[in-house]
Amino acid sequence: MNESIERLESGVRGYVRSFPTVFTRAQNARLENESGQSYIDFFAGAGTLSYGHNNPVVKKALIAHIERDGLMHGLDMATDAKLAFLEIFERVVLKPRSLDYKIQFTGPTGTNAVEAAIKLARKVKKRSHVISFTNGYHGHSLGALALTGNSYYHDEHYGARNNVTHWPFDGYFGDTTDTAAQLRQVLSDSSSGIPIPAAIILEPIQAEGGINVASDSWLREIRRICDDLDIALIIDDIQVGNGRSGHYFSFESSGIVPDMICLSKAIGGGLPLSLVLIKPELDVWQAGEHTGTFRGNQLAFVAASALLPLWGDDTFLAQYSRNCANAHAELARIASKYPGVELRGKGMIWGLAFANGALAGTITKRCFESGLVIETAGADDQVVKFLAPFTTEDDTLAQGLSILSNAVDDVMANVSTVKLAH
Amino acid sequence: MNESIERLESGVRGYVRSFPTVFTRAQNARLENESGQSYIDFFAGAGTLSYGHNNPVVKKALIAHIERDGLMHGLDMATDAKLAFLEIFERVVLKPRSLDYKIQFTGPTGTNAVEAAIKLARKVKKRSHVISFTNGYHGHSLGALALTGNSYYHDEHYGARNNVTHWPFDGYFGDTTDTAAQLRQVLSDSSSGIPIPAAIILEPIQAEGGINVASDSWLREIRRICDDLDIALIIDDIQVGNGRSGHYFSFESSGIVPDMICLSKAIGGGLPLSLVLIKPELDVWQAGEHTGTFRGNQLAFVAASALLPLWGDDTFLAQYSRNCANAHAELARIASKYPGVELRGKGMIWGLAFANGALAGTITKRCFESGLVIETAGADDQVVKFLAPFTTEDDTLAQGLSILSNAVDDVMANVSTVKLAH
Amino acid sequence: MNESIERLESGVRGYVRSFPTVFTRAQNARLENESGQSYIDFFAGAGTLSYGHNNPVVKKALIAHIERDGLMHGLDMATDAKLAFLEIFERVVLKPRSLDYKIQFTGPTGTNAVEAAIKLARKVKKRSHVISFTNGYHGHSLGALALTGNSYYHDEHYGARNNVTHWPFDGYFGDTTDTAAQLRQVLSDSSSGIPIPAAIILEPIQAEGGINVASDSWLREIRRICDDLDIALIIDDIQVGNGRSGHYFSFESSGIVPDMICLSKAIGGGLPLSLVLIKPELDVWQAGEHTGTFRGNQLAFVAASALLPLWGDDTFLAQYSRNCANAHAELARIASKYPGVELRGKGMIWGLAFANGALAGTITKRCFESGLVIETAGADDQVVKFLAPFTTEDDTLAQGLSILSNAVDDVMANVSTVKLAH
Amino acid sequence: MNESIERLESGVRGYVRSFPTVFTRAQNARLENESGQSYIDFFAGAGTLSYGHNNPVVKKALIAHIERDGLMHGLDMATDAKLAFLEIFERVVLKPRSLDYKIQFTGPTGTNAVEAAIKLARKVKKRSHVISFTNGYHGHSLGALALTGNSYYHDEHYGARNNVTHWPFDGYFGDTTDTAAQLRQVLSDSSSGIPIPAAIILEPIQAEGGINVASDSWLREIRRICDDLDIALIIDDIQVGNGRSGHYFSFESSGIVPDMICLSKAIGGGLPLSLVLIKPELDVWQAGEHTGTFRGNQLAFVAASALLPLWGDDTFLAQYSRNCANAHAELARIASKYPGVELRGKGMIWGLAFANGALAGTITKRCFESGLVIETAGADDQVVKFLAPFTTEDDTLAQGLSILSNAVDDVMANVSTVKLAH
Repeated sequence: MNESIERLESGVRGYVRSFPTVFTRAQNARLENESGQSYIDFFAGAGTLSYGHNNPVVKKALIAHIERDGLMHGLDMATDAKLAFLEIFERVVLKPRSLDYKIQFTGPTGTNAVEAAIKLARKVKKRSHVISFTNGYHGHSLGALALTGNSYYHDEHYGARNNVTHWPFDGYFGDTTDTAAQLRQVLSDSSSGIPIPAAIILEPIQAEGGINVASDSWLREIRRICDDLDIALIIDDIQVGNGRSGHYFSFESSGIVPDMICLSKAIGGGLPLSLVLIKPELDVWQAGEHTGTFRGNQLAFVAASALLPLWGDDTFLAQYSRNCANAHAELARIASKYPGVELRGKGMIWGLAFANGALAGTITKRCFESGLVIETAGADDQVVKFLAPFTTEDDTLAQGLSILSNAVDDVMANVSTVKLAH
Repeated sequence: MNESIERLESGVRGYVRSFPTVFTRAQNARLENESGQSYIDFFAGAGTLSYGHNNPVVKKALIAHIERDGLMHGLDMATDAKLAFLEIFERVVLKPRSLDYKIQFTGPTGTNAVEAAIKLARKVKKRSHVISFTNGYHGHSLGALALTGNSYYHDEHYGARNNVTHWPFDGYFGDTTDTAAQLRQVLSDSSSGIPIPAAIILEPIQAEGGINVASDSWLREIRRICDDLDIALIIDDIQVGNGRSGHYFSFESSGIVPDMICLSKAIGGGLPLSLVLIKPELDVWQAGEHTGTFRGNQLAFVAASALLPLWGDDTFLAQYSRNCANAHAELARIASKYPGVELRGKGMIWGLAFANGALAGTITKRCFESGLVIETAGADDQVVKFLAPFTTEDDTLAQGLSILSNAVDDVMANVSTVKLAH
Repeated sequence: MNESIERLESGVRGYVRSFPTVFTRAQNARLENESGQSYIDFFAGAGTLSYGHNNPVVKKALIAHIERDGLMHGLDMATDAKLAFLEIFERVVLKPRSLDYKIQFTGPTGTNAVEAAIKLARKVKKRSHVISFTNGYHGHSLGALALTGNSYYHDEHYGARNNVTHWPFDGYFGDTTDTAAQLRQVLSDSSSGIPIPAAIILEPIQAEGGINVASDSWLREIRRICDDLDIALIIDDIQVGNGRSGHYFSFESSGIVPDMICLSKAIGGGLPLSLVLIKPELDVWQAGEHTGTFRGNQLAFVAASALLPLWGDDTFLAQYSRNCANAHAELARIASKYPGVELRGKGMIWGLAFANGALAGTITKRCFESGLVIETAGADDQVVKFLAPFTTEDDTLAQGLSILSNAVDDVMANVSTVKLAH
Repeated sequence: MNESIERLESGVRGYVRSFPTVFTRAQNARLENESGQSYIDFFAGAGTLSYGHNNPVVKKALIAHIERDGLMHGLDMATDAKLAFLEIFERVVLKPRSLDYKIQFTGPTGTNAVEAAIKLARKVKKRSHVISFTNGYHGHSLGALALTGNSYYHDEHYGARNNVTHWPFDGYFGDTTDTAAQLRQVLSDSSSGIPIPAAIILEPIQAEGGINVASDSWLREIRRICDDLDIALIIDDIQVGNGRSGHYFSFESSGIVPDMICLSKAIGGGLPLSLVLIKPELDVWQAGEHTGTFRGNQLAFVAASALLPLWGDDTFLAQYSRNCANAHAELARIASKYPGVELRGKGMIWGLAFANGALAGTITKRCFESGLVIETAGADDQVVKFLAPFTTEDDTLAQGLSILSNAVDDVMANVSTVKLAH
């Protein structure tokens, strides 16, 4: 570990422990450290770098903006960069999907987008209760933390579980138990002890929770419950939106229309940006009622505006589709070799679930030693999580998957009995 | 108002209502709109742009970093840009003041730094209660919101006041009531109903609260209370740190050493960056226990590292000192002309307190019409808040103050009776 | 309705609306109103009068105590009446069941016993979270209210759902879903969002909730979960203890030993008395830490001491057994006549579940008109609840059941389609 | 200590430790133990026995009621005993004071009356926040506990301080600080962080808190604040109502009319009874919304109805007045002998405040050894609390005061320096 880090940075530092080197340069799916050693990046800033490190369109746009003295910081004043983003987002994302949303820029962190969404739902519905799900991950500020399942992040003295019910996610009790039907039952029962909430918040694909994919039918039943009981449905698409699922939004295959959508991570091309899409009839905020200093990160607007048009770019789309298919095929092949290893996922987010966190951790450690940055997820960190950039070149993808395959083989060769952990 | 903003942005937008134009370029203390009209900026991104818009050292460093494919986003992995920041911060800020702190990078918003600090205090002290102060402002995520006084930001259904006591700030009941002594009394009384808190959090100069300056002796008594009762003292220096008060930290004149310090806003030169300074013995975080995606905003590290050396630059320091003195002198002159107008502040943060928000709002509106961006603060927005960049040129400062002076004269000429609001 | 009641009593009054007459005298299972009209009482003070109104042994003991100037009120000082109760309770209840508990006298209401038990569990386990169940009923003070399912008793502004998870009771999702196994899964999963609680509290037979009987195997699995995860198991036997279930405690048939048991209602023979039985190793209370004025209701001690020996009295036991059998037989006969009417219960507590509250309410109203006091229970008041005194004479029991049977026939004759509500 | 108590009763037992003997009989202000030893009772069941032990009118009425098979337990059905109480209460208490209140019978404990009152205030005002005061004592169920100052009763894991601000009581910061004016300031300031509460709850004379008497002018200013800001004023007259203060209600000398009044303790002559008086316009309870089993303790109604007419009985009133005067005179004499001993109180409630709890505890211990039952109060138990029955005979009063006087002399003779504790 670097000595200055040790001396000066809080013990809370995390990823630097998994990837203990000093990175200095990065291009697309490759990182380089201070010794000039190259790493393939299948972690991509926890999905933030979906368009790769230093995407050329981003670099060019940022330099031009800085050179011409464009604003860097604008609070929530109007700027040309912000207007450009709003209009491109409308044209590329909203219009083609016939979606009608107001856009709230929050402080540029995912947790802040979640805080804003649940506050607005509580204000609109005049109820304090919210439902989130087992293995859900929504952030670390107290409002969002209450919605986050993993007890590692909780402490008795934070008092952070108030006004939240965690309900079993799709498939939590196995394939034969319909947890949406059970949710409808308790919410329809005035004596269940679980009040009608202001909002139900969920990730259609739980990423930190272990790559748990909700079925389209389950999502549709949740949507109907919300309709029937006047509940706001909030989709947290912070990690799995922006194209990660194979569609721009992770819920698109289900056909549902959420009441609010939280977006962050990849939207700003690596630069901090967060927003909440709000159905117009729910947008009852008073001016400045939820505020924050960095809601106008102009460089992120510039980067986002440069990247969104890629969704109309044939070269980009072809690479994206090939990567989705190739990753799926190779990961399925790896999983099929070992009983008890399960592949979960969709599009460009995949998880190889192992029997326990020790196995998965050994595999990712071995990957790093072989030049691949890849992380784990899940309650016990038992899932190896594939999050490569959409723009990864064919050979880099193949090479990274090969490193992963070898690491799995090495580790699994030494395991006699394998049991899949949930 | 711009039509795209109206159509697409949530009604929560705020500053764009006060300053209804589209800004396109900015340099130091000047903004330019799409028609080429120039504005002097005495708001400076709510203090975030203390080093001016597009400071040349920032521009140069950012462009070089981007061109060489330095990382833009690094989670909390080690990068050369982060190491450089850590070492410069140690050399410029900590060492000269003999301060020994661990540095936690949080999600790059002030509210997130506050959330991290109070969580850590609660975890360390194993108590859930926290004390903040009347007119305190600490952010909008639920944990920080609980600490924030202004009821405009609260809603019955957020449930956000839990585990917090708001105590009267220094001077709240007038000069003859020592609210620190009263606080000691209730905390020393096992039957007062106010439990020993995990932390006391305060802004030595309440900025949003109306430019209320705590005296050095009051701060020292709060420090002693914390020492005597094993309470963590958290200084929220998000708006008034980074040199805004005339010192690097706003509490320096008092000689106290806080247990934690929250920094954000100006530290990243306009780019999102937040950190918490933590006394080593309190840094009991487990790895990754408080996390977030944008804790490694590399461009902000680069900007911060470029700016911190200015505190050893004679030209910068001379301008800074002249601005402190000139602003104080001219604002005092303005205040002295009208009975009931009170000047509050220190260094480069000043407030002209008027009898009510209507007066102050009319003045700032008139300023904007005359080409000056300046905002209000305080419970009733009754305080005109001066927050010009440290780097403002002499003539720009004079010109801006002249616009302000004229606006005050115009508005006060029509006021027969003046009463100072608290 | 009586005019003085209308003029002077709060609108919160309830049972007087169901039974709108002024009662003046009562003996065993019979009430008499001011006109001398006689009613059979199958409600028995919501189970409080299990030994009948004005049981002769109680009358005699009370009058003797009052005449000899025995204390009426003793706080928690030692008195001869209290000592007598402690020793008889030990001899009749604890010793024969080899139970070793400390006895805490709380304020003489069921809700207070529940408050004491959950406070103690939280104090011992150093966790704030508690699990209770759908349709659970535990009282109306804020701590107990949080555990109570029925939303009729809740208000957004009470903030009363904190630190509680309501979990589906045995059978809630039908016979094929094992809600204890599901509970084990979420509590064993560190990422479920449902923390290990300080306590699990439950009524083995949910009375207010609609006469829902937990199976012995379900209770045993809950007990094992508590053992495995160091959770205090609190049995709320306030309504169904004291012999109501066919055993002295309602859980006896399962063989489990709770960590705490809340008793109230029938224990004092109609006079206010509440107590918590606590496993000695959990009795970490400091002196006076949970206190209250009426913990020493001496007349209730006297009544309780007079009644407990009945459990060794052959005449009493024979009547009790006959009543259990006869009630069951006749109620089963009534239920069997109508598809969709379900009989639930055990011992001397039975519920006839109808399709909806309107049906059940019409039946109980008709019963009252025919001279039978009987109430409803359940989320929609859809269950007619049989709670006759244990001491009801054979002919009175038969007569009351006959009134009920006729009322059911009358009402059901007019119902074409019947569906059972849950 | 009695062996059965040791073996069977929870360690939470309290008063039995201060008064370690077994009491068997009691008459008026005298208790007798199992050895026939007589004690004078200046504690009177913490004020519950204001009309003395076994008052002849109570004994007679109870025996008659029991013998004629009057109901003992009636839930909240109408009974002759309840009607009689309502009408006598109206005639003796409400009418002569021109008070118009609805009466809610709650579970028969003070804490339950408090719970009902704050719930109703929250429901009516649609706000969750409540203000109570330093040293306030309102009970031990979680809602009431949140309002209770003494930290001895709190535990971090109860989470019981939510939605409450404890404000300094009258005189808390000395005579020159007007804490009502300060309260008005923070409640009138939208940025103070202290929201407009649903209710302000207070004891005009804090009994458990150390016999702190609020001035009439302070009470009137609190009433005006409540009027001006639409806050419900709840008077907790549980310990100091029912004539204890020299008036029937403790606030009568101030002329204020509360929105709700909690009564318990002495109202039932020693038997459990609690009620809330509610201004008709606030009585928005739905039927059965706040309920409980023992709201119809008929024996307590009978006792209360027998006692209330005493307030029109010349002999009773003469004794009461003499006792008020004699107690005051003698206690003032005792206090005047020692610098630093302060007498506080009114009517028949007085406190001798000593420098610390050790002194006060030694005095009450010595009293008990000399045949006088008397307790302490205050944050540090530093106040010896005089609570003799109103009906105490002249010579018994004199004898008890003489025992107290001697105990004070004995203990203070050994104290060199005395400082008054707050």
